[in-house]
Order: sequence, then structure tokens, then C-alpha cells
Amino acid sequence: MNRWYHQRTKDEDYFRLAILKNANRIRNKVVLDVGAGTGILSHFCVEAGARKVYAVEASAIAEQAKKVALANNAQDKISVINDLVENIELPEKVDVIVSEWMGYSLLFEGMLKSVIYARDKWLKEDGIILPSCAEIYLAPISYDEDYEERHNFWYSIKDKYGVSMDTIVPLAKQEAFKNVCLCQLTTENVIAPETCIYSLSIKQVCEADLKRIEQPFSLIAMGRALVHGFTLWFNVSFEICDGSNVLLSTSPFSPPTHWCQSVMYLKDPFNVEQDQVIKGNIKIVESEESDRCIDIQMEFSSDFNGHSVNGSNIFYLNSNFT
Amino acid sequence: MNRWYHQRTKDEDYFRLAILKNANRIRNKVVLDVGAGTGILSHFCVEAGARKVYAVEASAIAEQAKKVALANNAQDKISVINDLVENIELPEKVDVIVSEWMGYSLLFEGMLKSVIYARDKWLKEDGIILPSCAEIYLAPISYDEDYEERHNFWYSIKDKYGVSMDTIVPLAKQEAFKNVCLCQLTTENVIAPETCIYSLSIKQVCEADLKRIEQPFSLIAMGRALVHGFTLWFNVSFEICDGSNVLLSTSPFSPPTHWCQSVMYLKDPFNVEQDQVIKGNIKIVESEESDRCIDIQMEFSSDFNGHSVNGSNIFYLNSNFT
Repeated sequence: MNRWYHQRTKDEDYFRLAILKNANRIRNKVVLDVGAGTGILSHFCVEAGARKVYAVEASAIAEQAKKVALANNAQDKISVINDLVENIELPEKVDVIVSEWMGYSLLFEGMLKSVIYARDKWLKEDGIILPSCAEIYLAPISYDEDYEERHNFWYSIKDKYGVSMDTIVPLAKQEAFKNVCLCQLTTENVIAPETCIYSLSIKQVCEADLKRIEQPFSLIAMGRALVHGFTLWFNVSFEICDGSNVLLSTSPFSPPTHWCQSVMYLKDPFNVEQDQVIKGNIKIVESEESDRCIDIQMEFSSDFNGHSVNGSNIFYLNSNFT
Repeated sequence: MNRWYHQRTKDEDYFRLAILKNANRIRNKVVLDVGAGTGILSHFCVEAGARKVYAVEASAIAEQAKKVALANNAQDKISVINDLVENIELPEKVDVIVSEWMGYSLLFEGMLKSVIYARDKWLKEDGIILPSCAEIYLAPISYDEDYEERHNFWYSIKDKYGVSMDTIVPLAKQEAFKNVCLCQLTTENVIAPETCIYSLSIKQVCEADLKRIEQPFSLIAMGRALVHGFTLWFNVSFEICDGSNVLLSTSPFSPPTHWCQSVMYLKDPFNVEQDQVIKGNIKIVESEESDRCIDIQMEFSSDFNGHSVNGSNIFYLNSNFT
């Protein structure tokens, strides 16, 4: 828990910055913190001058949030409510909703639905939500080292011990290629400019929008490369009252976050030349097994000098990520 | 799986070395491989000249082991049996048992019991077992950086954000201190010469011996240090027919293995001076919840110039290790 939390506090810096920069809209106002955890965002809101913060947390960590509020002499301003936000009753509507709801690939864990529910029931019409907007990006990647380590390891046994484990490769690959991986990529891995496949305003999105996201795409390779797969990442932005934005990006071009990037590796990597176009269609669909999980359906094709490749894969983002 | 396996192959190098060095005792003989996995140890035995290897594997990986045997044209020598070793029937007794049964802290996962069962039922009286011997070692450690990161993280929030999370520390510590951690230590972390708390011959040990291991200990600090806890590690050795040994050590003084070292951190670290003695008693007991898990009971005391510290803790080694 602690190791993960270290990274997390860096991510919370963006929330703190956005909350303090919005002090003009938070001072003397009422805030709802959805999925408050230990209540750290609620304390940022108190720091920004909030009159009242309802910190709603369904898990047992709510007990800790109560102790933290008391220890920081914020018990009059922060009301910790240990329940699902769908179950709570508040004595008033709120001016601001803050929530750190983002999961891997943005939508994993499905917590945005709780924010939407809270917004529709408790946010005043002119209220604000932090973060305010989110986008999901797609790009093709080349990442030979990681690909080899994950998928071609079994081939190496032969060189090492003289015992061929090649027969295990099909099963190992079958397992490997059906799940989304989490990787920390670098700029070098991204071989075409990313394309935005989904953009949403948290103030306007509705739950039905999230059940099935579908977007055609066209990606143009920046140079000759072997495409091992595709990556997804997201940005969220916090509107500031002065018209500016605070951006929290989980892209390979930004400092690492605990969300890393999501990677979908292909069973058969393919070569592209500079300016070669990869066309396709991506669907991000709520899993039938659990509304916390998502299925990602990728179809793509690419032609160059009469040579054509194409593929169609489904990747699962569930607790099996590696 | 693959990342873990990378480390694993290094560990298998020791098995291969021991098996090939014992070729004189394996050539034209019958081998039983307990918990064979993909069958890699069985193939080493074929390489050493075994007439027949029974590769017993309870999990579905046995199907892969069969394919690997076939692909390496070893299907006549290696019989893969997909069952618990406790259930199998063999047409003959065996000359050699090989098994990679060691778990964290040596005894976690309890697979040694299956080796003992196989030995009593299937090993010829003059047969050999590889590995042949095992020892567990105990030493006190100082590891400020890891200790702080694991246990004092919550204190740091105050400096960072001005929000005190100190009230969470007792719960966080309570969770942290009841489980054995896995760490890769270095020589610098070990602040007293280790003591062997258990030594067993795989040829002679019986299942009842493993239910409760108890050993008093006395450790002498090599210098002034803050003791953050204790570590356990193990060695196994493979007797070679020429009277020598192959040693696989998981100590902090040896190259890292996937077993790392087991660490039991203390809620209250204490200072020792050079030559100060830490006396105590350690019990390693089969967990009542699962015979795959173990409980480690530590009692210790240390006096210096009339100042005395002591402690009594139980640590659990189960799937919650971090």
C-alpha cells in the first residue's frame, strides 16, 4: 500500500494545485468529495476555504478519514460519511464535486458512474466538478525489449539448457495477448502521433455514454518501425476560474504516474515505413462480467506498397493486468 | 509469469549443475521429479543419463510438460503424470528424487511434505534426494530506508501538505508488522553474524518435524546499529557423488534469487552497541488456517549497560507478503 501511495501523492499534487487555484469558487462553498479515501482532497478544499465538505467513502478507510479530520481540527468542516454515494442523504446541494475516480485506461473500475450519480443528484446547476474534462488517447508502439521478455521468453530456454520449450509459446502467448498490460513507456516507444479517441466533459457525460465507446482512427508512422502493439493513456484537466487549466497527463511524454500506460500487445508484430497509415476502429465496452472491467476491441489494417496487414483483437482489462 | 521465470532460470542453474555432477548416480537409473512444472529438471536428468524419469505435476501445466517432452524427443524417457504425488502409482521404486520444493522462508507452501511422502513410498533405501540438505538462518537487520518507506510514510504527508495523517500510523503499522515481508537485502543490512536455527536432511526429516520448529538464539552485534527487525533465509545443498556439494544460498551475501529474504520488522526498532547480545527464541509453526502457511513467533531481549529491551511478536507468512 505504501509504495503505491508514494506515487499517488505526486498525482494528488495536481488536485491540490487545481483546488487552491480555484479558491475563488470554493471559498465559503459546499463540496462533495466522492470516494474520499483518507480525505486528503477534502482537506485541500478546507485549505481553499470551503465552508463544508461531505467526504463520502464506502470502505472502512472512512474510519481513518474521521480520525484524520479530528486530528487536523477539521471535524466541523469535514463530514465523513461511510457509505456509497448512491445511498447518502445530504442536507443541502453542493457547489463543487471533487473526486479522484480515474482508473487504468481511465474507465477501469467504473467509478466515474458514481460521480455522475452524485452530480445529477447533489450538484447545483452552476456547480463545478474537478477534474472537469478527460480524454483518452491511442498510439501504436514499438517496445522490443518488453515484448521479448513477456512473450518470447520460452524460446530462450533452448539456447540456455538445450531443452526446447517452444511448444509452450502458443499457450503463453494466448494468455499474454488477451489481457491489457500496464507499462511505463517512454517517448521512444511511441511511433506515431497519438490520436484522441474519446473526450468527455464530466459536467455533461451520462452513464449510457460510457457503456460503449467506439471510434475509428488513423495513425501515421513517424518512421520505419516494428509495431508491437497499441497503447492507451488519458489526460484529465481541471478548469480554473481564471480560464486556465491544470492538466494531469498519464502520457509517455509526461512524468510517470501510478496509472502507467495501458498496452495491448499483438500476437504478430508488423513493420511500418515512414508515413505509413494504420487505420482502424476501437471499441471500449463495459465488460459483461463486471461493470468495473472493460473490454477493448481493436480492429486495424495497414497497407504499404501493396503489402497489407490487418488484425482484430479483444483485450480484457480486469484484475489480471501485469 | 515470465518476469518471475527469468529469475527462476538462474535458480535452476544450480539444479542442473548438481544433476550433471551426479551423472554417475543418475546414469541408467530411475528418477522421480516431484512438482515437475514444465519438466525442466526431468530433462536435466535425461541429459545426465537417466533411464526413466517420472515427472509428477498436479497442475494443468502437466499438459505443457507432455508437449515439451515430445518436442524434445524425450517422451520414452520422461513419463509426465498429471496428479498429486500422493495419488500416483509407479511400476517401480526410484533411485533418485529431484524436486524444487522450496518456498519463501524455506517452508512456505509446504511442498516438502510431498517430497517426504514420495521418499517414504517410492525411494529405494540407498536412493538419493536432490537437494539433500537445507538450513534456515536468522540475523538482525538495519534497513532504515525500507523501514521508513513501509512504516513512516504517513508521517510525511504533514510536511508535504500540512495535513496530519499521523492518526493512520497505528493501523498502518498494525497491518505492516503482522506479516512477513520479502526484501532483497544486502550485506550492509545484516548487523550480526547469522545463526542457523534449523538444519534438516531431506533423506531423514519426517513430516512431524516440520509442524513446529523451535530454537533459542544468541546474536552478537558487529557494531552500533538501529535494529529494525530480523531476517530469515535458507540454503539448500546438493550432495555430489565425489563428496563435494553444490550450494544454493538465498542469503544477502549471495546473488539475488526469486526467494529474496524474509523480513520481520519490529514496531519499535532498538539500538545496539558493538558486541551487544540479542537473545531470544524463534518458533516456526504450521499455520492453523492452512498447512501451506506458517506463523513465526519471535521473542527476544537485549541488555546493555543496564538498559534493556525486549519484544514478543507473531508474524504471518501467507499470501499477504509484500
